[in-house]
Amino acid sequence: MLIQLNPTGVLDLLSQLEVDLLEQSSASERYRLFRNCALAVLNVGSHTDESSDIYDKYQDFDIRLVSRERGIKIELINAPDTAFVDGEIITGIHEHIFSVIRDILFICQKYEKDLKEQKAITHMVFDMLRNADALKVNSEPSMIVCWGGHSISEVEYKYTKQVGYELGLRGLNICTGCGPGAMKGPMKGATIGHAKQRIKNNRYLGLTEPSIIAAEPPNPIVNELVILPDIEKRLEAFIRTAHAIIIFPGGAGTAEEFLYLLGILLHPENDKQCLPVILTGPKQSEAYFKELCHFIEMTLGVEALSKFEVIIDNPQLVAQKLKSTMANVRDYRKSQGDAYYFNWTLKIENEFQQPFIPSHEQMANLDLHLEQPKQLLAANLRRAFSGIVAGNVKEEGVKAIKQHGPYILSGEPSLMKAMDKLLQAYVDEGRMKLPGSKYVPCYTIKA
Amino acid sequence: MLIQLNPTGVLDLLSQLEVDLLEQSSASERYRLFRNCALAVLNVGSHTDESSDIYDKYQDFDIRLVSRERGIKIELINAPDTAFVDGEIITGIHEHIFSVIRDILFICQKYEKDLKEQKAITHMVFDMLRNADALKVNSEPSMIVCWGGHSISEVEYKYTKQVGYELGLRGLNICTGCGPGAMKGPMKGATIGHAKQRIKNNRYLGLTEPSIIAAEPPNPIVNELVILPDIEKRLEAFIRTAHAIIIFPGGAGTAEEFLYLLGILLHPENDKQCLPVILTGPKQSEAYFKELCHFIEMTLGVEALSKFEVIIDNPQLVAQKLKSTMANVRDYRKSQGDAYYFNWTLKIENEFQQPFIPSHEQMANLDLHLEQPKQLLAANLRRAFSGIVAGNVKEEGVKAIKQHGPYILSGEPSLMKAMDKLLQAYVDEGRMKLPGSKYVPCYTIKA
Amino acid sequence: MLIQLNPTGVLDLLSQLEVDLLEQSSASERYRLFRNCALAVLNVGSHTDESSDIYDKYQDFDIRLVSRERGIKIELINAPDTAFVDGEIITGIHEHIFSVIRDILFICQKYEKDLKEQKAITHMVFDMLRNADALKVNSEPSMIVCWGGHSISEVEYKYTKQVGYELGLRGLNICTGCGPGAMKGPMKGATIGHAKQRIKNNRYLGLTEPSIIAAEPPNPIVNELVILPDIEKRLEAFIRTAHAIIIFPGGAGTAEEFLYLLGILLHPENDKQCLPVILTGPKQSEAYFKELCHFIEMTLGVEALSKFEVIIDNPQLVAQKLKSTMANVRDYRKSQGDAYYFNWTLKIENEFQQPFIPSHEQMANLDLHLEQPKQLLAANLRRAFSGIVAGNVKEEGVKAIKQHGPYILSGEPSLMKAMDKLLQAYVDEGRMKLPGSKYVPCYTIKA
Amino acid sequence: MLIQLNPTGVLDLLSQLEVDLLEQSSASERYRLFRNCALAVLNVGSHTDESSDIYDKYQDFDIRLVSRERGIKIELINAPDTAFVDGEIITGIHEHIFSVIRDILFICQKYEKDLKEQKAITHMVFDMLRNADALKVNSEPSMIVCWGGHSISEVEYKYTKQVGYELGLRGLNICTGCGPGAMKGPMKGATIGHAKQRIKNNRYLGLTEPSIIAAEPPNPIVNELVILPDIEKRLEAFIRTAHAIIIFPGGAGTAEEFLYLLGILLHPENDKQCLPVILTGPKQSEAYFKELCHFIEMTLGVEALSKFEVIIDNPQLVAQKLKSTMANVRDYRKSQGDAYYFNWTLKIENEFQQPFIPSHEQMANLDLHLEQPKQLLAANLRRAFSGIVAGNVKEEGVKAIKQHGPYILSGEPSLMKAMDKLLQAYVDEGRMKLPGSKYVPCYTIKA
Repeated sequence: MLIQLNPTGVLDLLSQLEVDLLEQSSASERYRLFRNCALAVLNVGSHTDESSDIYDKYQDFDIRLVSRERGIKIELINAPDTAFVDGEIITGIHEHIFSVIRDILFICQKYEKDLKEQKAITHMVFDMLRNADALKVNSEPSMIVCWGGHSISEVEYKYTKQVGYELGLRGLNICTGCGPGAMKGPMKGATIGHAKQRIKNNRYLGLTEPSIIAAEPPNPIVNELVILPDIEKRLEAFIRTAHAIIIFPGGAGTAEEFLYLLGILLHPENDKQCLPVILTGPKQSEAYFKELCHFIEMTLGVEALSKFEVIIDNPQLVAQKLKSTMANVRDYRKSQGDAYYFNWTLKIENEFQQPFIPSHEQMANLDLHLEQPKQLLAANLRRAFSGIVAGNVKEEGVKAIKQHGPYILSGEPSLMKAMDKLLQAYVDEGRMKLPGSKYVPCYTIKA
Repeated sequence: MLIQLNPTGVLDLLSQLEVDLLEQSSASERYRLFRNCALAVLNVGSHTDESSDIYDKYQDFDIRLVSRERGIKIELINAPDTAFVDGEIITGIHEHIFSVIRDILFICQKYEKDLKEQKAITHMVFDMLRNADALKVNSEPSMIVCWGGHSISEVEYKYTKQVGYELGLRGLNICTGCGPGAMKGPMKGATIGHAKQRIKNNRYLGLTEPSIIAAEPPNPIVNELVILPDIEKRLEAFIRTAHAIIIFPGGAGTAEEFLYLLGILLHPENDKQCLPVILTGPKQSEAYFKELCHFIEMTLGVEALSKFEVIIDNPQLVAQKLKSTMANVRDYRKSQGDAYYFNWTLKIENEFQQPFIPSHEQMANLDLHLEQPKQLLAANLRRAFSGIVAGNVKEEGVKAIKQHGPYILSGEPSLMKAMDKLLQAYVDEGRMKLPGSKYVPCYTIKA
Repeated sequence: MLIQLNPTGVLDLLSQLEVDLLEQSSASERYRLFRNCALAVLNVGSHTDESSDIYDKYQDFDIRLVSRERGIKIELINAPDTAFVDGEIITGIHEHIFSVIRDILFICQKYEKDLKEQKAITHMVFDMLRNADALKVNSEPSMIVCWGGHSISEVEYKYTKQVGYELGLRGLNICTGCGPGAMKGPMKGATIGHAKQRIKNNRYLGLTEPSIIAAEPPNPIVNELVILPDIEKRLEAFIRTAHAIIIFPGGAGTAEEFLYLLGILLHPENDKQCLPVILTGPKQSEAYFKELCHFIEMTLGVEALSKFEVIIDNPQLVAQKLKSTMANVRDYRKSQGDAYYFNWTLKIENEFQQPFIPSHEQMANLDLHLEQPKQLLAANLRRAFSGIVAGNVKEEGVKAIKQHGPYILSGEPSLMKAMDKLLQAYVDEGRMKLPGSKYVPCYTIKA
Repeated sequence: MLIQLNPTGVLDLLSQLEVDLLEQSSASERYRLFRNCALAVLNVGSHTDESSDIYDKYQDFDIRLVSRERGIKIELINAPDTAFVDGEIITGIHEHIFSVIRDILFICQKYEKDLKEQKAITHMVFDMLRNADALKVNSEPSMIVCWGGHSISEVEYKYTKQVGYELGLRGLNICTGCGPGAMKGPMKGATIGHAKQRIKNNRYLGLTEPSIIAAEPPNPIVNELVILPDIEKRLEAFIRTAHAIIIFPGGAGTAEEFLYLLGILLHPENDKQCLPVILTGPKQSEAYFKELCHFIEMTLGVEALSKFEVIIDNPQLVAQKLKSTMANVRDYRKSQGDAYYFNWTLKIENEFQQPFIPSHEQMANLDLHLEQPKQLLAANLRRAFSGIVAGNVKEEGVKAIKQHGPYILSGEPSLMKAMDKLLQAYVDEGRMKLPGSKYVPCYTIKA
């Protein structure tokens, strides 16, 4: 089955030079990346986080750029049925396909592969968000970044919907990392809340990256999708667009995000930043958060606990608190001459911007000792969890584990013990992978 | 607690003469009706269909019109908390309050109480819909009227959401009678479907009437609410705005609607009408529909069976069929020079327009014999079920039952037996009233 | 040549009952009125103010309502070419045609012929403006009513354009009585000013009445046209929608408007009203305004002079003054709880609301003596000028003059002398009729 | 007097990197260019085409970029009063200021100074138009490029307004080179035509370049302003965005444009292009066009005459013809798979793209002989007229003439004689410079 699609967004107005470059790019070594991301967004609704399952199932899927005098078209061959309604592609998915082309093939041409400078990296993140029309100049602070696991319990999922509903009732918008679970619930809830408040310009921003998109494809409710080139730029995009952050229960990925955030908030120059952070979940998740706080206190110290708040089983309170702090966020930005749509004044050290590629060697070499500056420890812990996410669900990581066995993590015994305990809890609670298979850890902790 | 609200819709632009009349009207014998309807829309989300419970609970609730040089304002005193988010009324409910004022106090002034003529009654229905901005001149056929019970099982409720989702994905709009159950599910499902298709002008039309609104308050998702003066005008509004009709499982009210519809479709002048009707439910509802079809066949004959289709457990098929028939509906209307937004050519006999007030006497006198024209039988059966709805959930009816005991229905034994069987099934399946109390029938069948 | 037009505005959504009534109305004694008004708006751009010329020229013109199941259509037969561009009617004129139907055939059905009560008359004026969507609820004070002659010099015409341009640059809107000269210039100028300020919701409101519309047809720039039933309701519409008033040089009609305005502003209850009035014209019009002020002082006293300001040859200053008083207007309305879009608190005595039909007898009987309350004198003088306008350009008036000779105006000699002088100046300056014919006065002044 | 302005268009969303670059650019050698262009757009309405007059008059004018955390602001010091209304800058001029920054300081950073390749130059033209939001993806062919003199007679000016009015009535849009005369008239006329047709998305596109902008500043009606870097890119922008071209009477600049156009249309690959060209003016301009056609026939041959049509004194016919050919333009573009908003298939040889800098040497060396391919001759003649425009009104050219005396043009005697005659006619008719000074030719013709 062959389907043709017209371009949307910035891609509907290209020069012949740009069309030529796009064609070359799509025929180059980027093709595989591009095809896989396209397949991921088409395959939404499938119930697996095993990238290889998806790629195996749709081996005969193909996507082609067709150039015309006046621009490009897309041809899809053997695309998953779930993307279509009576033969017509769902509009949300249609847009996502062109987000893939925009971010994977088009805008990347402007940037050299390995940006080093802090300012240049931040510019790239900004430029990609702007190019995706995800920066709204004239809007008040309202973007709530929601982090949390893709594999969570039904009770937790319903809770994320309720929180989203209460946020939506208060006119707040949602940003997540795409995918199922805690990344989908808040958007679905908010959709109903927005409908009751007659809000038409509601925003459901999805920020993802190529290596995670297959395991966590964007739900079509996501009405602004940006695919950042790597996890570090994605994390920077999250915290520079956030006006507040909610952390739901999750697994290693959520831990990675949380550690990244704390590492940055602990920087002395960010002392006065106004960026509210709330950890929340249903009654059943209380133990989970206790465990997590315990780990944070032990590793990053008591100061880190002051950077966030924990609210158990009270969606309304979460939404009320965040709604009422939006005025503070606005005042703070105004006092700094900063934009509302992008947090320029937030200090992000190069340490947090440089991509970490979790090879077995890199993982083994991580400096996991308590006696180092808190920020560096946060950065290293973040990398450890990042590696575990890769080993769990990212194509490259899964392959490496198959080939070389689990990552070896070693360091200070008390720290190792704490990590082991935390991770084991995630395994026991089914947070590492979607249900349906037995989880085999991709790591070994060595004290 | 006192809350002031500014007018919305047509009421934000009134002359001083109109303001005077409104004030007088709100202080007149209409006040009680007006107050109770306002309370009903404020009280959405409560879990009871017992009007008296609501009225008892909020005895100190009051609503007042305040006139100013330039128009009116509303004051709410001791309104239910559920209508508010952090002290601000939910926008959807704010709109509903002014729909109540518009339909109960304002537009009614134009009409004498008992319209007799067919054309004048239809004009009134049209005028109320137009005045509520519920007739869209330039839109294609897309309005799916969904009927079904307010008290249905969880499985049935989920099914109505799925059907709504599939309708929404196909750009179809939803009209229901307001209230919970089968009247809320399709709208919630469609909201998600519309979001995925980026549809912004989605319509959730609620048609209700004063005596049912407390038991079945409009969900705030309803973005066009019209309160017709009685059940007969509400039924006419349903079928003249419908481009197709879905009937989910339900109780006596659903039966009433279905019988009304068949009575009209069986009129020879409506022979060529293009108005698709689908009965649908999950696997678990199969028996329910069999029973219903059996009753229809027995009473209205085989011909009546040709006016609708039954689809079990296939939300996608239901939506596909309706989507594809929209072109037929358009062609038919075009061929007749008829409007898309209002089915003028549908013949509705005065028999079906005249209000039926279910006193014990009227109920006892209903002519329930098989040997009469099918249309008349349909009209009489409709009245019988209408009375049962009143006895179940409408304030007047419940009072009458308390006072005089159950209605007595009598007629041809075979018909009476069939009715009894049908009604008993509704009772057994919990379709008569919301769970939480034992149902005591408001009727006695005498063969 | 036969042209079919689809309805616009409120007329695109009618019930069958309404269609029936419209058809009857168009076939009734209102037909001639309706046809003539339609012809007038089609004939815009013709250079005559002689109604009979127009009616003679287009004797074979016809307009017909065609009813369909879903509403009405219009058929034009032998309509003037100037209304069309390459066979398609100009959109502005298309809208005007349906304004005629709306105001002449449709809304009038709601009102009995001779409303007596003050409140009922004001309600009717309001209702007609609202029905024409000419009352904008959420807009700031900005409507500048511009009065002045249809027959003015080229220098004066250019001046009105310059004033309009300066008003447009300041975001102010224009309301006039339709027609050429001082009623067209401000709109053309404002169009350019609005364009430079990128204002898209610019308003050019035209208020007219059946007996004047042929002599002063609305220019298609007029984007809101309302045809009030008589001159008195039109005058009330003017001053209740005005946020300020400019008076350019003009003839008897302008004098009528000015006297009406002063009569009302002199009412003690209007003492605190905030309604700025500026008389303005080029250097060449200085004598004209001196003469006029002199007449006002002599008749209505010095107090009347305090109700307005004269600015000669300074379009920028006129616009600046009015722009800066808009804040006062808003504050005043707010302090009174009054609407911005309609001046409810302005007191208009029944004296000024009752239609004056200028028969020879009525004109002869006017009480034109200085020794009467200023308000009554203003009302009587207003009637005298109203009659002269009728005798000059209104069909009925012109006929009456042909038949019975000039009106006789008599009264206190000094007053009569002053009137004679003023009127003679109008004659000498060519303000009574468009150039092209010798003006024969329709009045005789008897001291 | 210091005025601060917030950014509009693409400049309201910049990264800190971009802000830094802008600041550097504004402080660099581009500052003078930027300041002068800004002054030009502020100085609209002045009545001189002598750049130096403007620059002399506003020596103390300054414009500064102010960077903030979230972007830039502009400060104007001692800006011309005419740009303001009661202390507030006219919105149209506000936008033009930021067009200057966008095109002079911002987008140019992406391009090296001397692009050589055909595809790269066309891409740059496209990119600048797109960046200015001047390419509308979903609109039908409607853009009429109007060329003609800045110094024309009152009769001719009125004629251009009438043509603009008739174009506007037909929903056509206007593109000119900015400035007074034939470049302003069509826009003013179209504004009235668009208003009568209730067209809200009317486009008045101005294409200019830095060296001409002071002599021909954009009228604030221009609602899309693009400042191309040189005359050649401006000419390419004109003909690639044009759906048709009108040529009014004009001087050397108009001749330059006309010769450029014919040079391109005579290219064999453009044989089937659908690009209607009409020369038109009032009765009084008939001789002018005869002279011009004669010159064209003599130099470029009879074939060139087939590329355009001359219509004298018939604005309506001009507009009708163009309106009716829009369908052909659309069909042609469709048949080629070409865009409606940009004529990609039009062949423009590098010869016509390379900037010509009219030094005395270059002018003297122009190959002005009849015996060369028509296209080359057109290119050389175009350059000769381009030089004369520079000598007449461009700052650099005027300086060079002051320093070195008139340009010497030499070549084939018959051709030289013809040129001399044509130019002398322009001089005699006052087309070279605005009235107010004696014109001293900046050229000497040597046979």
